[in-house]
Amino acid sequence: MSVENVPDPTLLGADSAIIAVERTAICGSDLHLYHGEIGGQGIHLGHEFVGTIVETGPDVRRVKKGDRVLVSAVVGCGHCDPCLARDPVLCTGGGPRVFGTTLEFHGGQAEFCAVPAADSCCLAIPDNVSLEQSVLLTDILPTGYTGAMNANIKPGSTVAVFGLGPVGVFALQTAMLYGPSRILAIDRVPERLARAAALGAEPIDASDGQAVARILDATKGRGVDSAIEAVGADATITDAILSVAAGGTISVIGVNMNMEFPYPMPLAFMKRLTLKAALVSVPATWDHLVPLIANGKLQPEEVFTHRLPLSQAADGYRIFDKREDGVLKVLLDPSE
Amino acid sequence: MSVENVPDPTLLGADSAIIAVERTAICGSDLHLYHGEIGGQGIHLGHEFVGTIVETGPDVRRVKKGDRVLVSAVVGCGHCDPCLARDPVLCTGGGPRVFGTTLEFHGGQAEFCAVPAADSCCLAIPDNVSLEQSVLLTDILPTGYTGAMNANIKPGSTVAVFGLGPVGVFALQTAMLYGPSRILAIDRVPERLARAAALGAEPIDASDGQAVARILDATKGRGVDSAIEAVGADATITDAILSVAAGGTISVIGVNMNMEFPYPMPLAFMKRLTLKAALVSVPATWDHLVPLIANGKLQPEEVFTHRLPLSQAADGYRIFDKREDGVLKVLLDPSE
Amino acid sequence: MSVENVPDPTLLGADSAIIAVERTAICGSDLHLYHGEIGGQGIHLGHEFVGTIVETGPDVRRVKKGDRVLVSAVVGCGHCDPCLARDPVLCTGGGPRVFGTTLEFHGGQAEFCAVPAADSCCLAIPDNVSLEQSVLLTDILPTGYTGAMNANIKPGSTVAVFGLGPVGVFALQTAMLYGPSRILAIDRVPERLARAAALGAEPIDASDGQAVARILDATKGRGVDSAIEAVGADATITDAILSVAAGGTISVIGVNMNMEFPYPMPLAFMKRLTLKAALVSVPATWDHLVPLIANGKLQPEEVFTHRLPLSQAADGYRIFDKREDGVLKVLLDPSE
Amino acid sequence: MSVENVPDPTLLGADSAIIAVERTAICGSDLHLYHGEIGGQGIHLGHEFVGTIVETGPDVRRVKKGDRVLVSAVVGCGHCDPCLARDPVLCTGGGPRVFGTTLEFHGGQAEFCAVPAADSCCLAIPDNVSLEQSVLLTDILPTGYTGAMNANIKPGSTVAVFGLGPVGVFALQTAMLYGPSRILAIDRVPERLARAAALGAEPIDASDGQAVARILDATKGRGVDSAIEAVGADATITDAILSVAAGGTISVIGVNMNMEFPYPMPLAFMKRLTLKAALVSVPATWDHLVPLIANGKLQPEEVFTHRLPLSQAADGYRIFDKREDGVLKVLLDPSE
Repeated sequence: MSVENVPDPTLLGADSAIIAVERTAICGSDLHLYHGEIGGQGIHLGHEFVGTIVETGPDVRRVKKGDRVLVSAVVGCGHCDPCLARDPVLCTGGGPRVFGTTLEFHGGQAEFCAVPAADSCCLAIPDNVSLEQSVLLTDILPTGYTGAMNANIKPGSTVAVFGLGPVGVFALQTAMLYGPSRILAIDRVPERLARAAALGAEPIDASDGQAVARILDATKGRGVDSAIEAVGADATITDAILSVAAGGTISVIGVNMNMEFPYPMPLAFMKRLTLKAALVSVPATWDHLVPLIANGKLQPEEVFTHRLPLSQAADGYRIFDKREDGVLKVLLDPSE
Repeated sequence: MSVENVPDPTLLGADSAIIAVERTAICGSDLHLYHGEIGGQGIHLGHEFVGTIVETGPDVRRVKKGDRVLVSAVVGCGHCDPCLARDPVLCTGGGPRVFGTTLEFHGGQAEFCAVPAADSCCLAIPDNVSLEQSVLLTDILPTGYTGAMNANIKPGSTVAVFGLGPVGVFALQTAMLYGPSRILAIDRVPERLARAAALGAEPIDASDGQAVARILDATKGRGVDSAIEAVGADATITDAILSVAAGGTISVIGVNMNMEFPYPMPLAFMKRLTLKAALVSVPATWDHLVPLIANGKLQPEEVFTHRLPLSQAADGYRIFDKREDGVLKVLLDPSE
Repeated sequence: MSVENVPDPTLLGADSAIIAVERTAICGSDLHLYHGEIGGQGIHLGHEFVGTIVETGPDVRRVKKGDRVLVSAVVGCGHCDPCLARDPVLCTGGGPRVFGTTLEFHGGQAEFCAVPAADSCCLAIPDNVSLEQSVLLTDILPTGYTGAMNANIKPGSTVAVFGLGPVGVFALQTAMLYGPSRILAIDRVPERLARAAALGAEPIDASDGQAVARILDATKGRGVDSAIEAVGADATITDAILSVAAGGTISVIGVNMNMEFPYPMPLAFMKRLTLKAALVSVPATWDHLVPLIANGKLQPEEVFTHRLPLSQAADGYRIFDKREDGVLKVLLDPSE
Repeated sequence: MSVENVPDPTLLGADSAIIAVERTAICGSDLHLYHGEIGGQGIHLGHEFVGTIVETGPDVRRVKKGDRVLVSAVVGCGHCDPCLARDPVLCTGGGPRVFGTTLEFHGGQAEFCAVPAADSCCLAIPDNVSLEQSVLLTDILPTGYTGAMNANIKPGSTVAVFGLGPVGVFALQTAMLYGPSRILAIDRVPERLARAAALGAEPIDASDGQAVARILDATKGRGVDSAIEAVGADATITDAILSVAAGGTISVIGVNMNMEFPYPMPLAFMKRLTLKAALVSVPATWDHLVPLIANGKLQPEEVFTHRLPLSQAADGYRIFDKREDGVLKVLLDPSE
């Protein structure tokens, strides 16, 4: 992991734009690349970034040079029906891509970043939404919200959120948009459990491996209606499955790379379970999340525990990876 | 309006029960009867009541003598599929009835009240739910919630609530269970507007008849996604219709008796509107509302501004009808 | 009503196109203009047309010169989020417009027609879809389908369709896509009733004004779950309302211009009714309807009873207006 | 497997009934018991049966002695809210049970069978529904329909059904209730493929293991919107998963006993998949299926290829197990 001088990016096509990055953040999924579990050497990282448009191709119409924009971490071709409907996961023109995850598709932990299909993935930052809030709208808040959206939460429901990193915290906060009567929050880290309790959830300490038993106990043996998994580990996904009541839904947003995840089919059958996993269609969430932030109903920026200049990105990664210093989320500023 | 000695009620059939009433409340719709607009002379009023079962018919199974229960204001036959599914509005065995609205079907503003189809309309009062909260679960909180449920509110939506009496306040509070970004609250009474503001809504003073203009102004001309009407007057229903954006929903819970309400069909057509009106299926809401109250997510009892012995019911009606003394909701206690 | 030589249209902007019309049809709503009930003198009629693109502005991207296209009768600005999501009824950039209904916005009963926001309202005619089928995809089949979509039909439901003109026939055929157990089809014209019976519906003759009584009789007094109104008259909308069971939905697609349609609010309240009226978002229906036609599941072209050269449009209007000669739908061909 | 004389059953409680069985059928899941894969020695088999009530406990109310009834294969406690709402899978009073699958809970391949919670699991056979149709309403048609219900099929959707035994055939027929444009039908047996083609589906021969490639080929590489798995084998469930497009749903109704079914999590994540598996809540489907049968929209009885006296049940099992003689479904008649 290093910060290097690279050539300035050039336009990727008539529908693309160049962004002068103003803020960018490190995401938990960057750590998979950091550790070389996926990707490879030489990738320009970063899929959470905001900045000012400094150049546009001739076909860009909805944003323009000089606009301060936030950029969806996930982009499609930009021109098929699902992309126009802001749902790149369903893109029929090549499928979804994530910035900064391959050698060819450079990310935004940089001074400048080239953005394809800019009309489909850029949003001019609205009034009453700060730069830091905007960074969180590029991926991680929409991801947490997707976890909540897919969990079939109804007024009065009981919910369990597994994993209280930034995605889990946002899953928890956006789960509250659906009016549950209880949210059980599961993690092993005391500060994370305390933070969840402060947000109105019931903390469940999983450090002794007894999370499922505690959840069943807290629900008189019934289990929860909805479980949101925000870790991506086999063990926590399994705990989520074992924690839901008959008729329940398990919504997985933690990235799990197991092509043979052991799913307990008889249990799913007898209890009529629904399992959803999802890469987020970031732009599809903006209509919902932007007015909530602009009207003060969500304050996502509280997750930033560390703010560093981009030149210290290597420190930021180390702190985040080692979970030093109570870190929850690291913001990088290229201008400093 | 008078409090009189009447014979004790007797069982209404093998599936019925007798309740010794412990708390009962006056509802806005009782005023229609009070003024003789509907009903007639001699009706035993009261459809919001809770108490202890003192006698049951042989077919009553889910509750028993000695149980403290709350009673749905709306009951069906109790034995058809919709009634068993707790949805008496769809009752196919005679349709829904409301306690205390006809000469034959006595209400619960009394020391004792006979309850038909007790299994379908009685709920043993759960732990962590108080008597006063229980009274509000018999009609008015479920009614407000039905208004919110029918309004198609989504995370980030904009909502307008017309009328901030008790039903409107509950519509407003339960609308928040759906995660809206804004709730505009419309009334003419300063205290009611102040109460709505304290609950997190944006007050809109309608006393000069310019509510629609103010709502459009507050939404940059677009209108709101959802309007909930909790008054029942032609004028406010019309305002609600004029306030919604294209694709919007108007949910009417204020009782309106106009068989020829003037609906603006061309507007509905061009803007693709949905109009819902609904008598509430009280028991269908308990699964949602009871855990919200039991877990402290809803505090409905704050609406009670006046508590009187049942013997002073006539005073209670007068205060409520004249809107004296900042009254919002009157509770009556037969035991005092 | 006359066919006249007019100047060829010119582009309406960088996002527009010129279509050489190959087929166009007369719609029931054209008769409102024909009779001068709406619109005025000098309107160039026609909102159902297909043809070949002969010129495009520089910003048109999804279709090109030489493409055979069908054109949505309803268009929005073409660039707001709802328009990009193919839902012009919710257009936030000016709202929906219908071709050939104002002096400024010329229609397609012509040799050439200018089309704004072509990317949003043109669809290249797919394989296995004929020109005649394509004409029906521009308005009337999507309109009938919108009536069915808005009617909340579930497998096993009972449905009533009021009015068996072309829109009603399509409402009936697309209602079948939702698996109802029965469709009652109401009209006064024997041939129309016979056609509905041939399509699998149960004909109800309304010529003596007793349609509601017959529907209640046919459903043992219960009424139908869903009513679709495809006439637009106050009387049939009222019949539709009176025909639905508790919990039912009334979906109005017949254009009704009554700003004070008399809606029976107490009935709506006691029976928990839903009333929907809707201008169709034509392009939003193509994803559903095109594959159904291309795979032979819908044969909409059977509605064309009359095919005339465009030069005989005046005859076509007269036949259609007078309901001469068993007419159901008139197709006009500019090439003859 | 043998037919033996056993003592007549006695009532199971005040809410139970005794049925004199008139028709009963062998189900694919009986073969798991037949082979001893589940259950054990001495089980009285049979969960698909209809007959006449000969005795009832005192609390039975909705059916009575002398009624001809069909009996849900799946029963719950009969008295909790989900059971009253006809959804025993969500039963909170002990959970769902299936007749004839344990030593304690005797099945209906017998002259008499005791039925608990009779009000919740018996339905008086309606007019226009035959005995043979009724047998199919006890389990297998509702199971196929549950597969279709859970598959998120919309008008115009593309569907794949894996496995064309009786459950698969019913999944296919009820999938049509949702208006798909195409149904691909996958099996290895030529007669089954031919039957599916006759029902309007596109047969895909899986006998060379290339079903997925053929499905992708038939959909231009996109895959289907919905896949219904009616076999229960790991391989076909995996094929179903690989056959769906981005955003798709896999609905499993074939019973699979693998507690570690290998689910490809990265695929689910990138394509935003939904996986549902479900034991059927039989009574919840009757409101939909009974009117469809009574009105001739479904003819499920065509699946019966073999009709035998109950005394020849052992032959019936052998024929069904060995797939002799083009067998699809075997009906047994205790009266012969």
